[in-house]
Amino acid sequence: MRWTRTLIPTLREDPQDAEIDSHKLMLRAGLIRKLSGGLYIFMPLGLRALKKVEAIVREEMDRAGALEILMPALQPAELWEKTGRLTTMGPGMFKLKDRQDRLLALGPTHEEVVTDLITREINSYRQLPCTVYQIQTKFRDEIRPRFGLMRAKEFIMKDAYSFDTSADAADISYQAMYDAYARLFTRCGLRVKPVEADTGAIGGKWSHEFMVMADSGEDAVIECTACSYAANVEKAERAVTVPAPCTACPVVEPVATPNTRTIEAVAAFLKVPAARIVKTVIFTADSKPVAALVPGDREVNEHKLLRILGAKTLERADDATVARVTGAPVGYAGPIGLTIPIYADQALENACDIIAGANAADTHLLHVCIGRDARVTAFCDLVNACEDDICPRCAKPLRLTRGIEVGHVFKLGTKYTEAFDSRYLNEAGKAEIMIMGCYGIGVTRTLQAIIEQCHDANGIVWPASVAPYAVALLSLDPKDESVRTAVANLERQLESNGIDVLVDDRDDRPGVKFKDADLVGFPFRVVVGAKSLAKGCVELKRRSGGDSELIPIETAAVRIGQAVAEARAALNPVSAN
Amino acid sequence: MRWTRTLIPTLREDPQDAEIDSHKLMLRAGLIRKLSGGLYIFMPLGLRALKKVEAIVREEMDRAGALEILMPALQPAELWEKTGRLTTMGPGMFKLKDRQDRLLALGPTHEEVVTDLITREINSYRQLPCTVYQIQTKFRDEIRPRFGLMRAKEFIMKDAYSFDTSADAADISYQAMYDAYARLFTRCGLRVKPVEADTGAIGGKWSHEFMVMADSGEDAVIECTACSYAANVEKAERAVTVPAPCTACPVVEPVATPNTRTIEAVAAFLKVPAARIVKTVIFTADSKPVAALVPGDREVNEHKLLRILGAKTLERADDATVARVTGAPVGYAGPIGLTIPIYADQALENACDIIAGANAADTHLLHVCIGRDARVTAFCDLVNACEDDICPRCAKPLRLTRGIEVGHVFKLGTKYTEAFDSRYLNEAGKAEIMIMGCYGIGVTRTLQAIIEQCHDANGIVWPASVAPYAVALLSLDPKDESVRTAVANLERQLESNGIDVLVDDRDDRPGVKFKDADLVGFPFRVVVGAKSLAKGCVELKRRSGGDSELIPIETAAVRIGQAVAEARAALNPVSAN
Repeated sequence: MRWTRTLIPTLREDPQDAEIDSHKLMLRAGLIRKLSGGLYIFMPLGLRALKKVEAIVREEMDRAGALEILMPALQPAELWEKTGRLTTMGPGMFKLKDRQDRLLALGPTHEEVVTDLITREINSYRQLPCTVYQIQTKFRDEIRPRFGLMRAKEFIMKDAYSFDTSADAADISYQAMYDAYARLFTRCGLRVKPVEADTGAIGGKWSHEFMVMADSGEDAVIECTACSYAANVEKAERAVTVPAPCTACPVVEPVATPNTRTIEAVAAFLKVPAARIVKTVIFTADSKPVAALVPGDREVNEHKLLRILGAKTLERADDATVARVTGAPVGYAGPIGLTIPIYADQALENACDIIAGANAADTHLLHVCIGRDARVTAFCDLVNACEDDICPRCAKPLRLTRGIEVGHVFKLGTKYTEAFDSRYLNEAGKAEIMIMGCYGIGVTRTLQAIIEQCHDANGIVWPASVAPYAVALLSLDPKDESVRTAVANLERQLESNGIDVLVDDRDDRPGVKFKDADLVGFPFRVVVGAKSLAKGCVELKRRSGGDSELIPIETAAVRIGQAVAEARAALNPVSAN
Repeated sequence: MRWTRTLIPTLREDPQDAEIDSHKLMLRAGLIRKLSGGLYIFMPLGLRALKKVEAIVREEMDRAGALEILMPALQPAELWEKTGRLTTMGPGMFKLKDRQDRLLALGPTHEEVVTDLITREINSYRQLPCTVYQIQTKFRDEIRPRFGLMRAKEFIMKDAYSFDTSADAADISYQAMYDAYARLFTRCGLRVKPVEADTGAIGGKWSHEFMVMADSGEDAVIECTACSYAANVEKAERAVTVPAPCTACPVVEPVATPNTRTIEAVAAFLKVPAARIVKTVIFTADSKPVAALVPGDREVNEHKLLRILGAKTLERADDATVARVTGAPVGYAGPIGLTIPIYADQALENACDIIAGANAADTHLLHVCIGRDARVTAFCDLVNACEDDICPRCAKPLRLTRGIEVGHVFKLGTKYTEAFDSRYLNEAGKAEIMIMGCYGIGVTRTLQAIIEQCHDANGIVWPASVAPYAVALLSLDPKDESVRTAVANLERQLESNGIDVLVDDRDDRPGVKFKDADLVGFPFRVVVGAKSLAKGCVELKRRSGGDSELIPIETAAVRIGQAVAEARAALNPVSAN
């Protein structure tokens, strides 16, 4: 392909509304253009790179035995009613009506559609296991679309769904997808970290997120400084050393704490660290009040509390409920004397001589001993893990870091198959519920994550497997006939060897071409100029670094072809076998 | 791939709600499944065939120099306001609002988005010509979705858009697309007929539709029985022999025709053929009344009238307007005495001694001579051409037939580029409007049209270029180890030669496998059974016909590979060069 025959609108300056490097670079390198908030157009180079990512995803899904299908984006709302998600998906799901006044969803995901399909098409254990996938456009009405393709209203996902006869079989399907994810991200040139994750609104029991670690990531991740433990901050656990039960506790003593409705205010007033105070938060879980106790320097993790309670809904109690339950205005709740269920963080077990609200206005209690003074229903993990907490696996310090979620694997269990009564006949002819898993990859997000991880001050540094073109062939003297001929020959030789090459044939200064080649980030840059050509040579340089080298024009196609093949093979754990 | 590891839900019986053969066969062969009205799921085999069609379309677009991009399905409504199409597209366009209460269209086409893009990105004659395309999901709120993928609410299109500096350059871009269409449909194994077409709501000046001729087609096509002339019935012209001007016309004579408000009633009452009566229809064009005269056995073609008038809107006048304009109740309009503009079909030029309404209740006029009695503004082509009309090119008879529109090429001119003020700087530095063309292919519809054209009583007869698998390899005795080994070896050999093969390894009767192989329609069927294998042979049969032949197992892979390559090459006009 010739630069003058395609459309690569590179920009000299950073676009104003792009916040993170990868977003700026996608715009500057002419890979995408914004249509409006959260909606992007893929330009020729961007689409080429996207198709390469898609091809890698597809190959690894096929290798894992998953079957490619394609489901509609428009979905009848009735299907979503079956699982209750027409409501629980909330305003993030686009909905519209057709001429027949039927409500349709514009699919943000496809659990309902695929479960309905499999329920109709699979009826025997002989047809299981079955994993299907699609690479398809998804829609989400984001409150605040941002960071380019990272959080868009319309994006491409690979979503896969497994159906199995048993939990053990489902584990095998899950592991096959997990392994495929590890392979395919590696092949895309990405370093990813699988982290344990919460299952959120999609339901299910267990999941891993594949994170590209990056300061610009939207997800907080806790990882161990020593072992491989890593988890989404909502899911992360910590080890806690419970002190021995106390023996000689001082007597509880009320203290006046006027106008101290927050932990910070109490800590300042009493001149104690926040960790010495118990934070008591009243929630309404499935319309019933419960209390959660955590150390004063921590926040309650509502996902964990919800899971512990086994509740469907959980929200902070309103002021009236707090007043009714504690007998005091908001800000003075404490565990002593409460008659509602009390769940305390594990760090509070055997906590002694601490400070708590008195369930009375403007008053706190000193010398509280949790075991002696409060009727705790259960001690459990109720808070987010933090920097410097202790790893639950190896007891070394944890650290807080950030990541971009590019993939997600879930064990869903029977949440959807029960809603659709998805049964197969087992060997004994008995109808049993199928066990399900689901597996997503943000394909467009992955493309941008590659750039976020692979760039430098001059532009993108594409991995050879996903670069829009492997080679940029710069014609420095396009008016010189010997240069033109050499460029055309080399282009033809490379293309016939299956190397994709973009010839910069613009009538422009060499500096412009060098800068654009670096900005777009082609893995290999080959320069053909009249001066070196007179010596029978062209110049080869890798975008990833190292000096340029002069190579003889006669063997240039072979040398470049080898270099590209090596760079691609280095990213492919499968071809190495 | 093994049959037992994929998902091919073939059906023995015709599905109830499928009306045409291709729709029945897509369901029966397990290529698609219905999600709900107008929404279909592509199953693994259907998607494989679809991807092959897409690949051929992509190759020919690339060969023609078009650049692949990808635009969002969601489009800001403001863009559609710029061209007035937010209104004129009517209820066929899905619309929805996002959380910020912004109106979005779910794109049925992309003229607005692409014109906006090109206006922003192209500013010099040096960047032109430029043709971009995408293969993308489109949405249309069909009143009555039907015939499977033929008329669906969600479907895949290839849409391309050309931008040029002049009408001549635009003609070259148009021709490049026209030629690419002819090649790519041929490569898909389709016989298509390019027919002249009306430009409809999309606007523009000239267009061709690519039709797959089929009785089940939704489009009426007029074609010449002798030459290559063919046109959509809305666009088709006919030759008319205008008689010499009359000389001795009888005097006009009123005749009482009580309760004869239709041409049929008048013809029956006066015992004359309908063709001897003038049909006078009153329209409102841009709110002004006009009269259209056509022979009594013809209907007014409103598209043609609209174009002749150069009007924006055209509709039948309401009863009150008819009464006001003619001074008579509806049913008795005639040309004599009308003061509004009168447009008459060319067949009425010099018409003499005919019958017309008298503009008076229950009365018609005999012996009307159009040239003498009516003030006709213009004689022009105002009716649909019919079976047995005369070809405008060669004067031989026309015939009426039916087709499935699979592609459409338009010369748009400046309709969109003027709305977006899409200008480039010419060589003199002057800003000029770009000239535009647009080019669509219904990719999913093309897939089904292939089946509509290529099937027999037993099932689909796939062209080798788009078959989901080129070869079905039937293992007749899957429990026989020598058969199993021979099948596995042949499968491996074929796959390593780039031949896609589906092994029917089901533990089922041979009859089931033969029937399914015919139903799905793999171009080549290879049968491995214990009996023929004992003789060192396997059986090869073409789905398109001919006897099966025994071929030696040692050279089977080579023989089959050759046969597949020949079948593919036969469909490829490009590879023949």
